[in-house]
Amino acid sequence: MRIAVDAFGGDNAPEEIVKGAVSAAKTLSDEIILVGDEAKLKILLEKEDVRAGKISIRHASEVIQTGEPPVESIRKKKDSSLVVSLNMVKNGEADAVVSAGNTGSYLAGAFRYVGRMKGIMRPALTAVMPTVTNPCVILDVGANADCRPQHLVQFAHMGAIYAQQVLQIEKPRVALLNIGAEEEKGNSLTKETHALLKEEELNFIGNIEPRDVPYGMADVIVCDGFTGNVVIKLIEGTAGALFKMLKGVFYKNLSTKLAAAVLKPGLKTVKAKMDYSEYGGVPLLGLNGVVFKAHGSSDAKAFCNAVCAASEYLKTGVNDKIRATLAVAATECEEEE
Amino acid sequence: MRIAVDAFGGDNAPEEIVKGAVSAAKTLSDEIILVGDEAKLKILLEKEDVRAGKISIRHASEVIQTGEPPVESIRKKKDSSLVVSLNMVKNGEADAVVSAGNTGSYLAGAFRYVGRMKGIMRPALTAVMPTVTNPCVILDVGANADCRPQHLVQFAHMGAIYAQQVLQIEKPRVALLNIGAEEEKGNSLTKETHALLKEEELNFIGNIEPRDVPYGMADVIVCDGFTGNVVIKLIEGTAGALFKMLKGVFYKNLSTKLAAAVLKPGLKTVKAKMDYSEYGGVPLLGLNGVVFKAHGSSDAKAFCNAVCAASEYLKTGVNDKIRATLAVAATECEEEE
Repeated sequence: MRIAVDAFGGDNAPEEIVKGAVSAAKTLSDEIILVGDEAKLKILLEKEDVRAGKISIRHASEVIQTGEPPVESIRKKKDSSLVVSLNMVKNGEADAVVSAGNTGSYLAGAFRYVGRMKGIMRPALTAVMPTVTNPCVILDVGANADCRPQHLVQFAHMGAIYAQQVLQIEKPRVALLNIGAEEEKGNSLTKETHALLKEEELNFIGNIEPRDVPYGMADVIVCDGFTGNVVIKLIEGTAGALFKMLKGVFYKNLSTKLAAAVLKPGLKTVKAKMDYSEYGGVPLLGLNGVVFKAHGSSDAKAFCNAVCAASEYLKTGVNDKIRATLAVAATECEEEE
Repeated sequence: MRIAVDAFGGDNAPEEIVKGAVSAAKTLSDEIILVGDEAKLKILLEKEDVRAGKISIRHASEVIQTGEPPVESIRKKKDSSLVVSLNMVKNGEADAVVSAGNTGSYLAGAFRYVGRMKGIMRPALTAVMPTVTNPCVILDVGANADCRPQHLVQFAHMGAIYAQQVLQIEKPRVALLNIGAEEEKGNSLTKETHALLKEEELNFIGNIEPRDVPYGMADVIVCDGFTGNVVIKLIEGTAGALFKMLKGVFYKNLSTKLAAAVLKPGLKTVKAKMDYSEYGGVPLLGLNGVVFKAHGSSDAKAFCNAVCAASEYLKTGVNDKIRATLAVAATECEEEE
């Protein structure tokens, strides 16, 4: 398979992106196509140990920066690394695309160039979250800040398919993120969504309260993109803050330093479990193609994991299964952008 | 001052509530009035070391259970410990009320019996959150699951007053919780709210991203009640999950146990910092009276802290200041329940 990499997207582009893509190419059988300024990419590739044939370059002259207005940027910068990579998926020149670039532009570009699957109202950014027990799928985590109940119902189906195909969970437990366990709790969105989800052919286990999220009490967590984005960023922030405080405890004096050294391997495992870069990029489900978003601050390791996640995803039948399951509901979806 | 305690509200009522109230009475100069079944309360009080005059009982024959429908429960159970305690504030028989009972019923009862301040559209549950640096005020954390931008603007003012009067921060930094730092990010609620907040007489520092929340980068964080409830419960859950994983590391074998023992005092401090029970109850700001909500799962220690927080609050001029600041905007508030 061929994976297009937006080499100029992200806080650490292009250096870390190229390094990460090269690392991925070493372990994968896929062809990696670096998209961006050819001259610059050639210089960067010369520093790397690249085996022949697995990495190629596709020239793109422009770069979309962080903070540029999404819709305007993708319209104006048709030859940007971001737009060119997306178009490669659209035109069949690549099977998947990975970018750590401007999220808004990437989403807008994915909707515009790769396009929604027939029947899908809103594609959803879908993260796999670490928990104390098993990882858990959560969506939407940022593609749709304002949602309607029908969108969340589709997220539930897409998330369940993802959990089945990628996490190998036969009958994933689907839960609605809500601020109370009881059906009548929540805001108008979650109340209406709860009523709809009960009627769906899903293993719907009801509401999940935020405090239970880190314990892996559901396999799929459904929420609007605003709330989902808050959840993943807050877990990241809270874990980071706690480790920072623990560091203060460990480095207090000589005896604490010695004690911390004994615990180090175990602590490292815990930290890795809570570290999103270990989990790589997140797919945008519901598109006519495989579109992965890597964290904006991705370093080489994180970006490598994102490319590997995209490669892994290509081997699963997620997109086909979503198409087969949700295309039947294709009637009501033409109303929206 | 006199503090009414709903002795039959909460998962551990009445035993832990009574114990907590008695502990509080020992340190406070306030009079504590336990509200609930007199016979049962007398038996419980006999077991405690109570100094004369500081604790009294007010009989109430009914109990509102967890899960009872809010509006119906407070209408039907007029002689419940919850409704009677709220009415004591309304009638001037108590200066404040504290309950760990059914949140929905307590909020509905507070709105109905204690009533909103003139000018306040929506009272807000206001928590003080631990962070790596200084504690931070966050509201609303659960009273209003669906909000309009104007509500959030009032929350911002009430939160700023709270931070000034209770946390002694002269010019509190007020931030809007949002899924991006830029003004144009977010859902329709946060976008509109951002535009309004910029025009207010507040030290508005813009959006705060969820991952920065635990670092204390704002003194007041404003959000709708759904999101706020997600935030405090998710921080609690994430911290709990991490400590659970760390416990696994510490108890792995003899050497890790010994190492953990060295670090124990420091770890305890970190844990206490993240422990909500240390921070006691949360006030419902914007009411004609002092109404504190303790965590439903409060034990004696947590409930004692909630009563102490209410006592502390009574000494500050928060309610008067809110009344003085927000009563001017009294025109548009009669439209809503």
